[in-house]
Amino acid sequence: MRIDIITVVPELLVSPFGHSMMKRAKDRGLLEIHTHNLRDHTPYKQGQVDDYQFGGGAGMVMMPEPLAILLDKLMAERTYEEVIYMTPDGPLFDQRTANMLSLRENMIIICGHYKGIDERIRQHYVTREISIGDYVLSGGELAAAVVVDAVGRLLPGVLNDETSALFDSFQDGLLAPPVYTRPANFRGWEVPEVLLCGDPKKIDDWRYEQSVKRTKERRPGMTE
Amino acid sequence: MRIDIITVVPELLVSPFGHSMMKRAKDRGLLEIHTHNLRDHTPYKQGQVDDYQFGGGAGMVMMPEPLAILLDKLMAERTYEEVIYMTPDGPLFDQRTANMLSLRENMIIICGHYKGIDERIRQHYVTREISIGDYVLSGGELAAAVVVDAVGRLLPGVLNDETSALFDSFQDGLLAPPVYTRPANFRGWEVPEVLLCGDPKKIDDWRYEQSVKRTKERRPGMTE
Repeated sequence: MRIDIITVVPELLVSPFGHSMMKRAKDRGLLEIHTHNLRDHTPYKQGQVDDYQFGGGAGMVMMPEPLAILLDKLMAERTYEEVIYMTPDGPLFDQRTANMLSLRENMIIICGHYKGIDERIRQHYVTREISIGDYVLSGGELAAAVVVDAVGRLLPGVLNDETSALFDSFQDGLLAPPVYTRPANFRGWEVPEVLLCGDPKKIDDWRYEQSVKRTKERRPGMTE
Repeated sequence: MRIDIITVVPELLVSPFGHSMMKRAKDRGLLEIHTHNLRDHTPYKQGQVDDYQFGGGAGMVMMPEPLAILLDKLMAERTYEEVIYMTPDGPLFDQRTANMLSLRENMIIICGHYKGIDERIRQHYVTREISIGDYVLSGGELAAAVVVDAVGRLLPGVLNDETSALFDSFQDGLLAPPVYTRPANFRGWEVPEVLLCGDPKKIDDWRYEQSVKRTKERRPGMTE
């Protein structure tokens, strides 16, 4: 999988992609991430990429031309199945979308900054808009990192334990059950007895009950 | 505001807090972020912080003792209003929660990794669980960075334009309207005429209509 990320703050994205799972995915040749500084592609002076918004009001808008130039260049080099724009007013990202995107070969992700990008780029280039949640961030960079992480860990061979992702929250439509590790008694707080009984059937039943209970309490809409 | 972040991958958090808005907030003395490597506080050999889960199954669990030791130490030094645990099965983060957390003085954020932290820490130390969305990440670090960013930008004096955050999506219960900047005609794609008319009342009306329309289409639940 190849992901091209367009940003005005490329330095924000250095450490999220340089360690842990993302590093492993890259080292194993499973994921290629190319970060593009939009300022390197602007036809305007002094790296200008944003301007005041038409109609007035606080906050700058990312200009259409630098984005169009960089998008045209990338799209001439290879075929992209998705041109994604990270924006708080996009459809909400969820595990189903992560699963689907994990099957793509090439994707572009545009990180919005300031008040966002010119609407004409959304209309004429963007194929999918994504919001990672109903809150506002100072830019799309962290949101892009979240999407890349959620998608990247689903690529076969990225997680060390192949079965691990299958038992995550959401993959079966339920939240994960509580987990415990040593010591069995910590400061007088004990692990539930069933987890120490050694009977896999009983343990599975308990975990399933706990998952259902937790999902009903915390995500009532998920079980409908 | 002071935020202490507990993690097993502190290097992931270097660049998200070192640039752009977060850097400005720190430089202006409005936000102090302290990242703690959990491995520096474990009583176990070779920096061990995780172990197999009771009852069997794939994935490691973060042990209770290293977390309790570090939490006790921090909580002896000052009063924390929140001990937050980032977890996909927590209540969903939203702008209302961001607004509320922006009023706190001191917070601790625990980043889960592997299969998460031992349930007893959740029961006995954690005051608030947060999920940034219904998807699974390889760890809680990016999720913590998202929360810190969403909260940090609301601190008075962090954004350069004080009025800017007030007109973001969600602050008035509506998504933001489309935005446009120069050129007015780009490749034949024109800016809506109303934005060039110079009549602030007409422009405000159009933006409000667009916000309502977009919110109804994309977040039908938000307007109810």
